[in-house]
Amino acid sequence: MTQIAAIIGGGVIGGGWAARFLLNGWDVRVFDPDPEAGRKIGEVLDNARRSLPGLYEAPLPEEGTLSFHATMPDAVMGAIWIQESVPEQLALKQKVYQTLQAHCDPAAVLGSSTSGFKPSELQAGALRAEQIMVCHPFNPVYLLPLIEVVPTDQSDLAIVERAEGLLRDMGMYPLRVRKEIDAHIADRFLEAVWREALWLIKDGIATTEEIDNAIRFGFGIRWAQMGLFETYRVAGGEAGMRHFMAQFGPALQWPWTKLMDVPEFTDELVDMISEQSDMQSGMYSIRELERIRDNNLVGMMRALKTQDWGAGALLRDQDHLLNARAAMPRTAEVLDLTRLTETLRRAVPLDWTDYNGHMNEARYLQAFGDATDRFMEIVGCNAEYIASGGSYFTAETHIRHVDEVHAGHMIRIETYCAEGAGKKMHLFHQMFEGDRLLATGEHMLIHVSLSTRNATLPSEVVANTLQRIAQAHAALERPEGLGRMVGKK
Amino acid sequence: MTQIAAIIGGGVIGGGWAARFLLNGWDVRVFDPDPEAGRKIGEVLDNARRSLPGLYEAPLPEEGTLSFHATMPDAVMGAIWIQESVPEQLALKQKVYQTLQAHCDPAAVLGSSTSGFKPSELQAGALRAEQIMVCHPFNPVYLLPLIEVVPTDQSDLAIVERAEGLLRDMGMYPLRVRKEIDAHIADRFLEAVWREALWLIKDGIATTEEIDNAIRFGFGIRWAQMGLFETYRVAGGEAGMRHFMAQFGPALQWPWTKLMDVPEFTDELVDMISEQSDMQSGMYSIRELERIRDNNLVGMMRALKTQDWGAGALLRDQDHLLNARAAMPRTAEVLDLTRLTETLRRAVPLDWTDYNGHMNEARYLQAFGDATDRFMEIVGCNAEYIASGGSYFTAETHIRHVDEVHAGHMIRIETYCAEGAGKKMHLFHQMFEGDRLLATGEHMLIHVSLSTRNATLPSEVVANTLQRIAQAHAALERPEGLGRMVGKK
Repeated sequence: MTQIAAIIGGGVIGGGWAARFLLNGWDVRVFDPDPEAGRKIGEVLDNARRSLPGLYEAPLPEEGTLSFHATMPDAVMGAIWIQESVPEQLALKQKVYQTLQAHCDPAAVLGSSTSGFKPSELQAGALRAEQIMVCHPFNPVYLLPLIEVVPTDQSDLAIVERAEGLLRDMGMYPLRVRKEIDAHIADRFLEAVWREALWLIKDGIATTEEIDNAIRFGFGIRWAQMGLFETYRVAGGEAGMRHFMAQFGPALQWPWTKLMDVPEFTDELVDMISEQSDMQSGMYSIRELERIRDNNLVGMMRALKTQDWGAGALLRDQDHLLNARAAMPRTAEVLDLTRLTETLRRAVPLDWTDYNGHMNEARYLQAFGDATDRFMEIVGCNAEYIASGGSYFTAETHIRHVDEVHAGHMIRIETYCAEGAGKKMHLFHQMFEGDRLLATGEHMLIHVSLSTRNATLPSEVVANTLQRIAQAHAALERPEGLGRMVGKK
Repeated sequence: MTQIAAIIGGGVIGGGWAARFLLNGWDVRVFDPDPEAGRKIGEVLDNARRSLPGLYEAPLPEEGTLSFHATMPDAVMGAIWIQESVPEQLALKQKVYQTLQAHCDPAAVLGSSTSGFKPSELQAGALRAEQIMVCHPFNPVYLLPLIEVVPTDQSDLAIVERAEGLLRDMGMYPLRVRKEIDAHIADRFLEAVWREALWLIKDGIATTEEIDNAIRFGFGIRWAQMGLFETYRVAGGEAGMRHFMAQFGPALQWPWTKLMDVPEFTDELVDMISEQSDMQSGMYSIRELERIRDNNLVGMMRALKTQDWGAGALLRDQDHLLNARAAMPRTAEVLDLTRLTETLRRAVPLDWTDYNGHMNEARYLQAFGDATDRFMEIVGCNAEYIASGGSYFTAETHIRHVDEVHAGHMIRIETYCAEGAGKKMHLFHQMFEGDRLLATGEHMLIHVSLSTRNATLPSEVVANTLQRIAQAHAALERPEGLGRMVGKK
């Protein structure tokens, strides 16, 4: 049955939550008195639809249904997750919980997006304190995995653990904070950096743009993959963390920060920062900056995925989950031999497209290569077989480009096995968006020994499975375009 | 004439500088009394050779010569850049400058890698204060672009500007710090975050791994591309920076940090951090972590390059510079028509390779696509022509994989134009490493109108140039493998 989330308070954060739930197949019921809420959430959703599905090498579930509701009691009907993202005023939040808890499922997760309040403050005076916890996300919520989950001693651990399971299910990373603390964890760092940055600007040491460059051309890109401590461990060299600390610990006594003092937030300082920020980024609208940011995040996260590291390792875990759910055949036993084999179903990722949003030439081959990998898995040339020292290498490829496709759109590949005998595996892939043919890929692969890199015969099991599929496909209609050479019909 | 840099003090930072200079064609002379200096710099160089050249879509100049010298006077001979990276002791640094300045070119850049000292402190008592400045890099120096350049009122601005030019020349980003300040700019942020992190660990709020995850799964990856202020500008939504500040300014008065107090650096705290760090990262050696970090950085920086943003925009600028220097033909006028056309020369980037270091299948097509783009440029279908509404689209591709190639190795492509008439352009690329044939790519392209996406004739200039090259190539030996279909000789 479709899971239901209630979003209390839209805006950038509530809209981001709505998008994350919807694109993971949940139905989403929104309460937000802002008459602009529909438009605002729609814009976040547009951004999410072009960027999130393509993060994965497997299809997401079908998108859920979004509905808007005039009252909180109506919005929480049937919801197993209620996410509160109303303005940062404690009395308002507490009043909202009174209304929500009078009508919602007592077993539902009641999460708050607050960065400013501790969960014990949110729970004070609540009908069921045990249901309320902090689930603090990071913008854009539809792309960034981190959720700080902060319970208290009063929390029902069963609900907290269910919340963490549901977050993981949507590809997010729940970070359980061990003890509640003002601003949780990440925002404490942001606050420290923000204060230091205000001093640097106030004192005329650097502008907003210079500070941003000092971050993104140096430690920022390091932190994107390893964070603080692992980065320093590497910096310590062969002697490691202890050496690093011996070297840099003393700096604590040096005057390297003005944080012992808080900069006064004068109109003059606000003006200076606003003007510098306009100078730095004013040539882009916020909408454009959001898309630039999302393009960058998707590209970097998918780059980390090829390394199976950091946010990329989370994406890989999610691929396994989504693949298991997608119910595409992974072994010959479950294959329907009376039709072509479906070997790929996925959204076109942002990082596969050019500046006009069209899929790049080389990514067609990447998709065909992924389809070939899946076909190999089906015939028994899977990870275990490859680890034992045999595999198929592509010797030749022939691609015909028929039509174009854009980021976020679903593509699928159907594969015809033209020959599977001896050392050879001859495949013909057809790539579609819906019923529209986009490209064909014809591939000759040769079975090799991974130690000698020379051609060898595959195992008997692989040979027999391949032959069985090739024989079955021979009875199907031979695809148009097979056996063609470049430039000749 | 080859430029010469002197590296005073090897280690991770000095070695990183050495690698950056060498791979950009400088000769490098090292002074370091450590008997292990040769091995240590060699290891940094190995890392740099596999990661740096492939950042670019154009070849770097030929690597310079590395030499080791027993004395500082010998090391600085002929050097126009002297980089000091000795231990962080002011008296030691000042003594080193005495020796260096007694022997070096008075017009040379004398840069210090110090994070702990201000340039006025370094200049105190120097023979020529005007020559000394801070040039503070970030590890790994061979990949990260940021250099904090900090002069004083005593500095010779001509030398400072020359230093900045030379840094840009090597693809780095000199950030001129407007006024000297303890720890320059970036390390002030690192210090603030480090202090806050020590508190979080000491107080049992989070472990080293949890803190690293709080950074890299949330704000860390955001900062990798936009930094602090631009990120907040986007977060402010349509109302922008002023709105963001109105919303979050007041947090300055909240107890969101313990930075007003400095944590005591006890043995107990050092032990706790070392043990948590071992638990988090102890399964990898420092050498392994360095390679993982470099793979991640290269992947993310190149992902940003496709977006022409942040560190990726710097890489693009460098491509233009390197391409201009590489002297490969970009117009038909300068083309030698008696031989095949060289259309690509570059190192295989880390992000094009699999976990065994072999170039991935789809990246062969990417390289062939880049070669096709260059050939199009040569026949006059350049950026300006494309902006006017015409281009060639690939209709068909035939690739033969002949041999394998690894990250960091130089590949080049030679192109035979088999046909260039009417709407058609028929190319045959051969990819080599040295004289070793790696793959061939045969491509049929069709000229299209970018507005209708339909086939049209190219401009007369393009048609004539293409025809002229095709006629000249017809007189050359027809490449083996042209006109083949998959699986047939």
